[in-house]
Amino acid sequence: MTDATILTIDALKERVEAIFRRAGLNAVQAGALAGVITAGERDACKSHGIFRIEGALRTVKAGKVRPDATPELAPPDGSAIVRVDAHGGFANPAFALGLPVLAERAHALGLAALVVNDCTHFSALWPEVEAVTAEGLAAIVMCPSYATVAPAGGTRPLLGTNPFAFGWPRRDSDPYVFDFATSVAARGEIELHRRAGKPLPEGWAIDSEGRPTTEPEAALAGAMLPFGGHKGSAIGTMIELLAGIMIGDLTSPEVLDRLGSTLLAPMHGELILAFSPEAFAKGRPGDPIARAETLFEAILGQGARLPSQRRFAARANARAQGIAMSSQEIAQLDRLLAEGLDAVAWD
Amino acid sequence: MTDATILTIDALKERVEAIFRRAGLNAVQAGALAGVITAGERDACKSHGIFRIEGALRTVKAGKVRPDATPELAPPDGSAIVRVDAHGGFANPAFALGLPVLAERAHALGLAALVVNDCTHFSALWPEVEAVTAEGLAAIVMCPSYATVAPAGGTRPLLGTNPFAFGWPRRDSDPYVFDFATSVAARGEIELHRRAGKPLPEGWAIDSEGRPTTEPEAALAGAMLPFGGHKGSAIGTMIELLAGIMIGDLTSPEVLDRLGSTLLAPMHGELILAFSPEAFAKGRPGDPIARAETLFEAILGQGARLPSQRRFAARANARAQGIAMSSQEIAQLDRLLAEGLDAVAWD
Repeated sequence: MTDATILTIDALKERVEAIFRRAGLNAVQAGALAGVITAGERDACKSHGIFRIEGALRTVKAGKVRPDATPELAPPDGSAIVRVDAHGGFANPAFALGLPVLAERAHALGLAALVVNDCTHFSALWPEVEAVTAEGLAAIVMCPSYATVAPAGGTRPLLGTNPFAFGWPRRDSDPYVFDFATSVAARGEIELHRRAGKPLPEGWAIDSEGRPTTEPEAALAGAMLPFGGHKGSAIGTMIELLAGIMIGDLTSPEVLDRLGSTLLAPMHGELILAFSPEAFAKGRPGDPIARAETLFEAILGQGARLPSQRRFAARANARAQGIAMSSQEIAQLDRLLAEGLDAVAWD
Repeated sequence: MTDATILTIDALKERVEAIFRRAGLNAVQAGALAGVITAGERDACKSHGIFRIEGALRTVKAGKVRPDATPELAPPDGSAIVRVDAHGGFANPAFALGLPVLAERAHALGLAALVVNDCTHFSALWPEVEAVTAEGLAAIVMCPSYATVAPAGGTRPLLGTNPFAFGWPRRDSDPYVFDFATSVAARGEIELHRRAGKPLPEGWAIDSEGRPTTEPEAALAGAMLPFGGHKGSAIGTMIELLAGIMIGDLTSPEVLDRLGSTLLAPMHGELILAFSPEAFAKGRPGDPIARAETLFEAILGQGARLPSQRRFAARANARAQGIAMSSQEIAQLDRLLAEGLDAVAWD
């Protein structure tokens, strides 16, 4: 990038936060959103970086997320469930509010759950997973999305791309983290094929009649397919049940009904499970954190990668050398700061 | 089946239990094993039926499971973790011992975990899942296996076929249940292709050099592949971490080292998570059990099936009409009863 501007991670975060403040988000919403967007850029995960700012602003402009919401932690009830009501705001500050209590409960009881209700989920799940692993806990995180995926054997959109994410804490390394859609591909990948005029790989999608298609337009009018056939479909359904219905929040078809569009960030709930390896392994032979390293070494030793390896390498690089932003990206940030909600269309 | 003998479910269970008692299993081990084997026949799930008796006896004869073990429940410690030490016996009676305490804890805390240690896992995970759903709880159950699956991008066996199972309670129907291997295929399916002299479908396995193969012999000498590429591989790894390492029990490579064979039932631990939908949904709009029915209707309404549907249909049939066993199967049961451990070879 010959025209690159190098920003520190903190400097980028300040710029993104200023954009959200200018667009009317309160401090807690703007700070949390700027944090995850900056984390995406830091990790060279461009699809979760500043590219997402306009989607967030569009959702605010459409009136589908409350920019001034203050998340609220439910009073402790002695159970293993920690609840945060996002009050219609973004999930990210609600998660941040619940995290310390989740960690305390998981260390005390061995496992605990954080339920975030009435939130607009924004961006990936790995920021949540990593925050839990930083507390010395393993994590499973999931949430519904909007109905764009047909169940295996079905013909119409019903499930969401329902991400499933997991993390395991490591002592001297970045955590073991994965975070993936339970559809074969993300909806954005189909959109990218459409723009490029390229056919889709086989097995990604069906058309509106339920027939396999490699046409991006037909796929967008039809449905995406779950990863791994009936197995991925079952996991996607489990996510609707646990992270939608069980926590008393919306399922993917209900989200789509409520929003009327897949161009806005989805509103629903999120389920975060935290496990204390120390508590689970108590009284048993071996240190679980050390034993896990043996497994990771065996995976790496046969030439396979650990998930998120590339992200962590980019992160180390960004910490040492800053983040390179193109002049086009800098101009985009300047424009968003200058125009606020006028920068995006919604009607 | 023209030569079929019709047995009631209870009559078959008595016969199987007698075989295990004759082979030296104590009452608690024999009863639990007979229960799951009879459940397999009842559900027309032949691969988990009486076919499995010899494998259990072979594992006893090899000295890799204690036929006289009495599982022991750890004293309650107020946490969300319930622990049962199987003391080297089968997992099934240990699970049965822990289940009521797991249910009590999950109803009290919202979620809880049952850890079974030092057990030989036997047969499928759906019996455990169904037993948890019968308590009005949702369940996730997982355990390692032996190292027969290469991680995505790898070349050698490391992960197990690591089953992942889930259940959701329903009021007026059999529960929603899935239970699948995180490999593309079960090892037994490759063995069946070998015996039939048929090539494997593409994508099931790699040879001992890490190259894709459709030769069953080469696959058995090489490694199976995870379902869904890197996503299934990640879930298989999660199961090693949570249901092996975290609970202080063996990973799949350690199991294979310990047993030296994939012909014996695997010894390790098992992790059962139980969730109370009632507790999670408390204070939120809607009844989760009723809302789930809307989701199931939408799946069925587009011609897709719910997992386990065929099993439940066979079960209803067996309850009404008994279980048809061929004369060959009856002869096999008679022989096993007469010969006890002499019926199987192990050295």
